Amino acid sequence: MLRTTAFFRSARAPPKRLVKYTINHTTRTYSTVPLKLPDKESTLAKFDFPLATHTINDVTKALKSLLKNKDQKITLNGHINRKPRIRATMSFAEIRDAHGDTSQIVMAPGLTDQKFFDLLKSTTTEDSVSVSGHLQLKQNKEGETDRQWELVVENYQILNSSNLDAARLDKLKHASPEELPPQFRYLQLRTPYFQNALKTRSRIAQLIRNIFVENHGFTEIETPLLFKSTPEGAREFLVPTRSPEKFYALPQSPQQYKQILMSSGFTRYFQIAKCFRDEDLRSDRQPEFTQVDLEMSYINSSDQVGIVVEDLIHSVWNKIRKVPTYKVNEEGYLEAIAFDTSAPNEKLHFSKLSYTEALTKYGIDKPDLRSKLQFIDLSKFLVPSKSNNGEFPILEACVLKAAFDPAASKKYKVPHNLVDPLNYTRRRPIVIPIHSKDDANAWYNKFIEKGVFSPTAEFNEDEFHRSLNLKEGDILAFSTRAELPYENPTPLGKFRQLAIQEFPTKWNREIINKETGEISQQSKREDIFVGTWVVDFPLFNPIETTAESSDDFPTYDYTSFESTHHPFTMAKLEDYDLLETDPLKVRGEHYDLVVNGVEVGGGSRRIHDACLQKYIFEKVLRITNYNDLFGHLLHALSMGCPPHAGLALGFDRLCAMLIGSPSIRDVIAFPKNQSGADPVVDSPTAVSEKTLNQYFITTKI
Amino acid sequence: MLRTTAFFRSARAPPKRLVKYTINHTTRTYSTVPLKLPDKESTLAKFDFPLATHTINDVTKALKSLLKNKDQKITLNGHINRKPRIRATMSFAEIRDAHGDTSQIVMAPGLTDQKFFDLLKSTTTEDSVSVSGHLQLKQNKEGETDRQWELVVENYQILNSSNLDAARLDKLKHASPEELPPQFRYLQLRTPYFQNALKTRSRIAQLIRNIFVENHGFTEIETPLLFKSTPEGAREFLVPTRSPEKFYALPQSPQQYKQILMSSGFTRYFQIAKCFRDEDLRSDRQPEFTQVDLEMSYINSSDQVGIVVEDLIHSVWNKIRKVPTYKVNEEGYLEAIAFDTSAPNEKLHFSKLSYTEALTKYGIDKPDLRSKLQFIDLSKFLVPSKSNNGEFPILEACVLKAAFDPAASKKYKVPHNLVDPLNYTRRRPIVIPIHSKDDANAWYNKFIEKGVFSPTAEFNEDEFHRSLNLKEGDILAFSTRAELPYENPTPLGKFRQLAIQEFPTKWNREIINKETGEISQQSKREDIFVGTWVVDFPLFNPIETTAESSDDFPTYDYTSFESTHHPFTMAKLEDYDLLETDPLKVRGEHYDLVVNGVEVGGGSRRIHDACLQKYIFEKVLRITNYNDLFGHLLHALSMGCPPHAGLALGFDRLCAMLIGSPSIRDVIAFPKNQSGADPVVDSPTAVSEKTLNQYFITTKI
Repeated sequence: MLRTTAFFRSARAPPKRLVKYTINHTTRTYSTVPLKLPDKESTLAKFDFPLATHTINDVTKALKSLLKNKDQKITLNGHINRKPRIRATMSFAEIRDAHGDTSQIVMAPGLTDQKFFDLLKSTTTEDSVSVSGHLQLKQNKEGETDRQWELVVENYQILNSSNLDAARLDKLKHASPEELPPQFRYLQLRTPYFQNALKTRSRIAQLIRNIFVENHGFTEIETPLLFKSTPEGAREFLVPTRSPEKFYALPQSPQQYKQILMSSGFTRYFQIAKCFRDEDLRSDRQPEFTQVDLEMSYINSSDQVGIVVEDLIHSVWNKIRKVPTYKVNEEGYLEAIAFDTSAPNEKLHFSKLSYTEALTKYGIDKPDLRSKLQFIDLSKFLVPSKSNNGEFPILEACVLKAAFDPAASKKYKVPHNLVDPLNYTRRRPIVIPIHSKDDANAWYNKFIEKGVFSPTAEFNEDEFHRSLNLKEGDILAFSTRAELPYENPTPLGKFRQLAIQEFPTKWNREIINKETGEISQQSKREDIFVGTWVVDFPLFNPIETTAESSDDFPTYDYTSFESTHHPFTMAKLEDYDLLETDPLKVRGEHYDLVVNGVEVGGGSRRIHDACLQKYIFEKVLRITNYNDLFGHLLHALSMGCPPHAGLALGFDRLCAMLIGSPSIRDVIAFPKNQSGADPVVDSPTAVSEKTLNQYFITTKI
Repeated sequence: MLRTTAFFRSARAPPKRLVKYTINHTTRTYSTVPLKLPDKESTLAKFDFPLATHTINDVTKALKSLLKNKDQKITLNGHINRKPRIRATMSFAEIRDAHGDTSQIVMAPGLTDQKFFDLLKSTTTEDSVSVSGHLQLKQNKEGETDRQWELVVENYQILNSSNLDAARLDKLKHASPEELPPQFRYLQLRTPYFQNALKTRSRIAQLIRNIFVENHGFTEIETPLLFKSTPEGAREFLVPTRSPEKFYALPQSPQQYKQILMSSGFTRYFQIAKCFRDEDLRSDRQPEFTQVDLEMSYINSSDQVGIVVEDLIHSVWNKIRKVPTYKVNEEGYLEAIAFDTSAPNEKLHFSKLSYTEALTKYGIDKPDLRSKLQFIDLSKFLVPSKSNNGEFPILEACVLKAAFDPAASKKYKVPHNLVDPLNYTRRRPIVIPIHSKDDANAWYNKFIEKGVFSPTAEFNEDEFHRSLNLKEGDILAFSTRAELPYENPTPLGKFRQLAIQEFPTKWNREIINKETGEISQQSKREDIFVGTWVVDFPLFNPIETTAESSDDFPTYDYTSFESTHHPFTMAKLEDYDLLETDPLKVRGEHYDLVVNGVEVGGGSRRIHDACLQKYIFEKVLRITNYNDLFGHLLHALSMGCPPHAGLALGFDRLCAMLIGSPSIRDVIAFPKNQSGADPVVDSPTAVSEKTLNQYFITTKI
């Protein structure tokens, strides 16, 4: 005998009750009626069923030959894709197989046993079923057969039933991520978009591993996840142990272990590694994330790392995304990279951009180079009145050419997004639409009068106009920056990002065909991926001291330093002496790989000389307890560790870019939400006092 | 100017000071003298050096053509393999490259600059160096050239120095794992044995992934490591969060997430996954370990999982270990498995062994089938006097045929290992050497007299003798067991394991050549790998209630049950009704893969029917809070989750077997020690009060 409860039903239980779910699992209610063993026949039928003979696509491809053989029995297994149509004579349903393909199944009197009609009545969307029968061509409205096939049911089994009504399920399946009650992630994952997203991620990982191993002789080595707390960077997750007062920490990256591996004689290490950061979760950060991590020893230039990384990057774009990668050539055009996926790379294809050039041209260290927008230094002509004691002396401008039609409206207002204070960390650029010739010629007088800036001694009106070349319909933005900005992005850099978002089709770089010299516009912008190496970062930053409340200039303590990336990065050899005399002038052997304004990866040559590493800890960074924190690394370096360099790629972000999604959540099966919770399993949870006692900890509020 | 400190030296600092290390990192002392920036020239030389033109093996292979070109300059980079020999005229050193090959380098007056001679004097074992020069053939003692080459040094650079004297380093490098101060793991990892171990592990992972993806269409999906505490199995590591009283737990396996993935429409999932268990560490367990995890949906038999798993197993043995796998055929011979690595498998090759057969023949659920030792049931003849109220009524024997030479010594004593109480959990078998015909014929009388056992009514002396067939030189062991033993291994099962260890060359199964019928002995025992599927486990065990102090029979509460493996395993369909009437009689759809007595993997068909799963939780296992613990899984199952089954392989153990090591530590770069500490980085550590406050926890002792 069959029991139904509020929550669980067996396949045959008629009729279905609509169960309401709330988002929080803990409010689910279950029956408290004592359960009996579920009905034997219907339960065992869920385990005892024929294997699929074909996928739906198999059938479509071999349709002709399959139709010839009248005795050919076909079994399809999958989910019911939408509510079956029950008719007095024929009934219809749609089955979706594991590849996301769908096909019609039909129950026909005489051909299909009556019991299967009854079973179909109790079937609803997203039930898992097994269907066997023979193929026939569908008839169109005029009664003619067409090329499409359907399966006439001879056997029908419900392998498991979904427990919601079809209408609600249909809505849930196609809900946007924001609308979907998040514990229903598994319904969403069944849709073709997410199936493709995670399968593509798997293919990317596989391709990357094959390139590492087969093209470059790398060894994949797993490093521990129960690591040591080295509280220098982001906040780390702790793991209590059953030794009183002793904790592991989950690693932010395998950085230290991979350097120890270099001292262990491995010359080419990689790992697709889980990493952890307990940071406040922005919309697109996850507390656990995946990193493609590599390190190479006995190399004397970062280019050797870059060549391997470019092999990965060009290959995944060519083979997975099936579009070329682009670089910016010397004339500022985009040039498709001619990359031979069959042969290992021997040189860098992307060009290099120095930190200083990136900040002065684009106001950020990860510029989106699809756009040709860049800044004009006005400091020859104008001096800002407010420069925070001369720390921000450069006045720079960005012109959005022909942003609007000056004839169309006299009242054109700059899009709010470009000037919204919420989009800026601190001060904003001043943004002016150029409505008229007057505006173009005399816009600055007003600001001189108001005392925003004043002309320099060399101010020359003609030269000034030539440098800006303003026309009606342009939008002008200007702001201040430091000579070498630590502010990153600068106010104008942020403005540039917002302008690219706001006007995605404007000011894009043209594409040059290297063979023919032909120049064309970007046609499908979503298929354009422009990469660059950003190099020559300052090795150290002054420590920022800006007050929380400040909405003006950031302030710095120029006598205390922190590593721009991490303390293990080597200085550029030509800047070596500056480590002693002027650390802020030292450039690091760090390199970032930036694609379309996203930092895809970053790496560096490392300090393998323990004596120099110790100097950096003690004298530059003034880390007093470096022996406790990093003694293990110094020890490993001091034992004949060879020179080495490496890089890490953000794997989640890379996968998201490749499937064309702005969100890494789309390529993670079970992402955490913004409170760090997993709504599917309802973690984190409270833990019993007894368990905590084993770890010698207690909670407090 | 160059500074040396107690700990860190630059390459040129003469002469080296021997620094003593203690095992505990925290006792290392560093100089407190203020540091200056290390000497520029020698430090930068460590970063600016020529790349290797060849590996040593490259040179050996291309020696003839390389020698022809007199101008050919060769650069080798690597470690100095042992202390250089400094002579008044010529000096010699040995360089080891990253592949573990070694070559002699020679400094010759006239050819090598004097400064390099001086540099070689300050060189010691395990310094990292770059050497350039030209090739010549070595001269043997008679002054004749032989086929071996050496490199005449024209440029020599120390890329990093090791900071211990050569003698100590040599000793450390070749120390056994027990002797090596464990923070020197990186020296050990440089040796060819460990280089091979970790490179082989990487190759195995790569091969396994390729088989999953290319042969079987699996998708690799990463599941979260920040999971939820579900305190049903082993002790879990907790991860405090910045929400008061909320904890993640690190997963013991991806079991629940992978079942949710089955409900998410993925039909073939795999992952090489990190798992965590906070258990008391036996010699060969690690708190973090790696598992090859797979799950398949829409399958109706565990064989479909087994076929994929056998593809992995036969392939890694064939391609990595380069030996065949064996099964036990029906006559009890070993038969090499004919496996075509180029084509996916279509059937199971290993045979199946039921739990009952395994326990009654071999006394354990993971028998080492290389040995043909098996047990003789004596219950037809003898009844034990002590049977714990009839719970252990079976008297069984194991005979070690011709274990000793009865003529050689009248005083032969059974090896202590076989009878050492420390080797047994509770009661031990009685073990008797058969010294004489008398012993063979009348050994049991003594035990009948002593009341150890008594003859049955059907006791027939001839039949009894035939069944045991004892001869002088045999060792007889006998003990008791239950009808269906939950004791696993049984006392005699443990005895069998010890006997195999003690007499590795005896009682091994013969190998049959399937083509010719020829029968041969096992020749290289370390190359024989015998696999079997163990099936038909009881789905539930009675909960053990044995008192800690007991050294006799284990006791059970036969009215309360626990899952033999985990609560998600399906019952055998034919035992379905027993779930209600007699749960202990239910056999599970669980299958273990056992190779040479090691459980390589285990898996099952799962319960995909939420109603049945709930019944098992509530009625059989009496888990009252199953909604809190497993509500997420019930929810996922109830949403049309298809039938599914899977398996997990212990990857560390698999790799250790394949490199022929008894210890998983040999295939883990940085294993934890038996206290759960990582001596290389000195984790776990204390954490500041400030950090703990962020997680709303405090420590207590």
